[in-house]
Amino acid sequence: MFKPEMLPELSHRWKAIQKEMIRKGADGCLLADNVNLFYVADRVYSGYFYLPKEGNPLFFVKRPIGLEGENVFYIRKPEQIAEIVLQQGITLPQTLMLELDELPYNDIVRLQSIFHPTETLNATTAVRSVRAIKSEYEIGQMRHSARLHAACYAQVPKLYKPGMTDIDFSIEIERLFRRQGALGHFRVFGQSMELFMGSVIAGNNADNPSPYDFAMGGGGLHNLLPVSTNGSVMMPGTTVMVDMGGTFTAYMSDMTRVFSIGRVSPLAYKAHQVALEIQSNIEALAKPGIATSDLYNRAIELVKKYELLPYFMGHSQQAGFIGHGIGIQINESPVLAPRSKDELKEGHIFALEPKFVIPGVGAVGIENSFAVHKTGIEKLTVLNEEIIEL
Amino acid sequence: MFKPEMLPELSHRWKAIQKEMIRKGADGCLLADNVNLFYVADRVYSGYFYLPKEGNPLFFVKRPIGLEGENVFYIRKPEQIAEIVLQQGITLPQTLMLELDELPYNDIVRLQSIFHPTETLNATTAVRSVRAIKSEYEIGQMRHSARLHAACYAQVPKLYKPGMTDIDFSIEIERLFRRQGALGHFRVFGQSMELFMGSVIAGNNADNPSPYDFAMGGGGLHNLLPVSTNGSVMMPGTTVMVDMGGTFTAYMSDMTRVFSIGRVSPLAYKAHQVALEIQSNIEALAKPGIATSDLYNRAIELVKKYELLPYFMGHSQQAGFIGHGIGIQINESPVLAPRSKDELKEGHIFALEPKFVIPGVGAVGIENSFAVHKTGIEKLTVLNEEIIEL
Repeated sequence: MFKPEMLPELSHRWKAIQKEMIRKGADGCLLADNVNLFYVADRVYSGYFYLPKEGNPLFFVKRPIGLEGENVFYIRKPEQIAEIVLQQGITLPQTLMLELDELPYNDIVRLQSIFHPTETLNATTAVRSVRAIKSEYEIGQMRHSARLHAACYAQVPKLYKPGMTDIDFSIEIERLFRRQGALGHFRVFGQSMELFMGSVIAGNNADNPSPYDFAMGGGGLHNLLPVSTNGSVMMPGTTVMVDMGGTFTAYMSDMTRVFSIGRVSPLAYKAHQVALEIQSNIEALAKPGIATSDLYNRAIELVKKYELLPYFMGHSQQAGFIGHGIGIQINESPVLAPRSKDELKEGHIFALEPKFVIPGVGAVGIENSFAVHKTGIEKLTVLNEEIIEL
Repeated sequence: MFKPEMLPELSHRWKAIQKEMIRKGADGCLLADNVNLFYVADRVYSGYFYLPKEGNPLFFVKRPIGLEGENVFYIRKPEQIAEIVLQQGITLPQTLMLELDELPYNDIVRLQSIFHPTETLNATTAVRSVRAIKSEYEIGQMRHSARLHAACYAQVPKLYKPGMTDIDFSIEIERLFRRQGALGHFRVFGQSMELFMGSVIAGNNADNPSPYDFAMGGGGLHNLLPVSTNGSVMMPGTTVMVDMGGTFTAYMSDMTRVFSIGRVSPLAYKAHQVALEIQSNIEALAKPGIATSDLYNRAIELVKKYELLPYFMGHSQQAGFIGHGIGIQINESPVLAPRSKDELKEGHIFALEPKFVIPGVGAVGIENSFAVHKTGIEKLTVLNEEIIEL
């Protein structure tokens, strides 16, 4: 099922979920979402993971064949789970946690009809809160992703040729990422947000509003996927913002760098410097215990001081956050937003992305991934942060 | 909201859904899934689509800003929908269709608490049955995807260099697809099946079982995405099966061709020829009215006649189908499987993929996309079908 050396790490995760279960009053937790299965089993499989509030978990596998290990049971359908749980001497749960924000309605109803819990609690929020606190192992995985992410970005200028379209440029960046080991598949929480590998946004395409709560939009190539490149030729005096998902490990780093075709307007350089100033201000403030809304508010203060509010986090449509937790998905807890109730905790990993859209020029700003330690934050994505002329 | 020239096409789709609603006894249908929104609005947006059983639909948009048109209403939250529906002189539905197999449990519960329907029916199955019957416009889109798909595959041999790994080969094929206009994003129905762009499966990696109900597996590069390439060097005497998603329009063509490094074993060539014979048998049989299980059974008869059953649709783990509907998603109706209740209908588009895994050699076989017309089927993905030596 999983490599023996992963047992301490996985065991730590199971215990953290059990702690959350006990806090909420749940007797059992059944998971089926791919991301959550990976989190608790170190692999995606078709099936279920059942965790009682005490003791070891049970793994119910439909596919693939050949998984072995303690408490691994092959099933054809979820109706077999209850019987196997009882056979293991485990009482069926009265209060059951299921992934209410992840599994389709009919799947939840089917699982409820198997267990007949007197109460169903939300495993989505519980497991997301556990996943938000990364272990040393997970921070190590993220560091590895971040290092490869930065190494790719260092190569980006070599890929540019004058007269290129944004999509031609994006395709070469995608290839660079894949050759560096990126899995490619972009993981977002919430079924409606879709993106292919990341965003490459040139010039005024930055001002095309997105249907999603992404920091920057882009019109996209098709109404089916209306984000990122729209086929624009990259023109002198404009920027191109590269914001790819760092899918080099299971832990997605998030990082943005801005390139320009020749020089850009003074306003664009000014806004970029303000983004860097916001970042360094937040780096100075950020430590366990601080409210993420305070970090957001600090950013807004600076934006107002420099009179850049109309351009901050978009121009025609503005995003309402400046950062977000990252992990197996690109949008984990915490969120750095004005009404967020989150506070930074040791083990959080988040992306901070103060950005501006300057009409006629494009997007400027910065994004880096940070890990929260006892005394402050560690920048994981280290690379030149100025606007790089192509 | 949508281009005026799309109105007849969209209007035809709305009426087809209304017909299904009346057949099932639904007064209203509310959709929110991206694929379904695209189907009814010709674009993905963040929001909802409400269709009463008679008359025109209402479009409820959260993002992006700037969508205009008849019956387009901007909302912040779904709770505003009911009031707007009433303001339009439409009675609130007693029997409401919601996407019970697509939306998360909590989303459905929230929508139910807005409309208080006496009964909730499943919009997922209803809209999937409508989406299965493609219009001339949709067949045209699929033909366009299929043509570009075939044009890419014709270039694949040029990408091969001796000693390449499967992933290096895959990356060059991905780039070729993207340069030909592929959107990249692979759309699968059912939240758990994940794949990046498609499968490139070399040699014995074909025998690595998949967690998903895909025809062929592949071990993958990571436990997070355990399908397709696993880093194998492509060796003389083995095959590489290329099965990419044709995401050139909103309608995904599906097509597989097999390449070999030098010559392969007689058993592999024999199995490949049997796959082609299965295909030509099914082409002769397939027309509106035939049970898809009969097509499956015809395939199995031939496989048995040639004593190839242990290799058919996988070796260590076998898939239980030989074809599947395609459209905006890669797995639409109908399915060509032994217990399927589907029959072919005019307007169906399906992929037929008889394949074998030959231990020590790899995967062989064929996959093409077909449209069902009044008198028979049309092959959309036209290209040399033999094993092509690299």
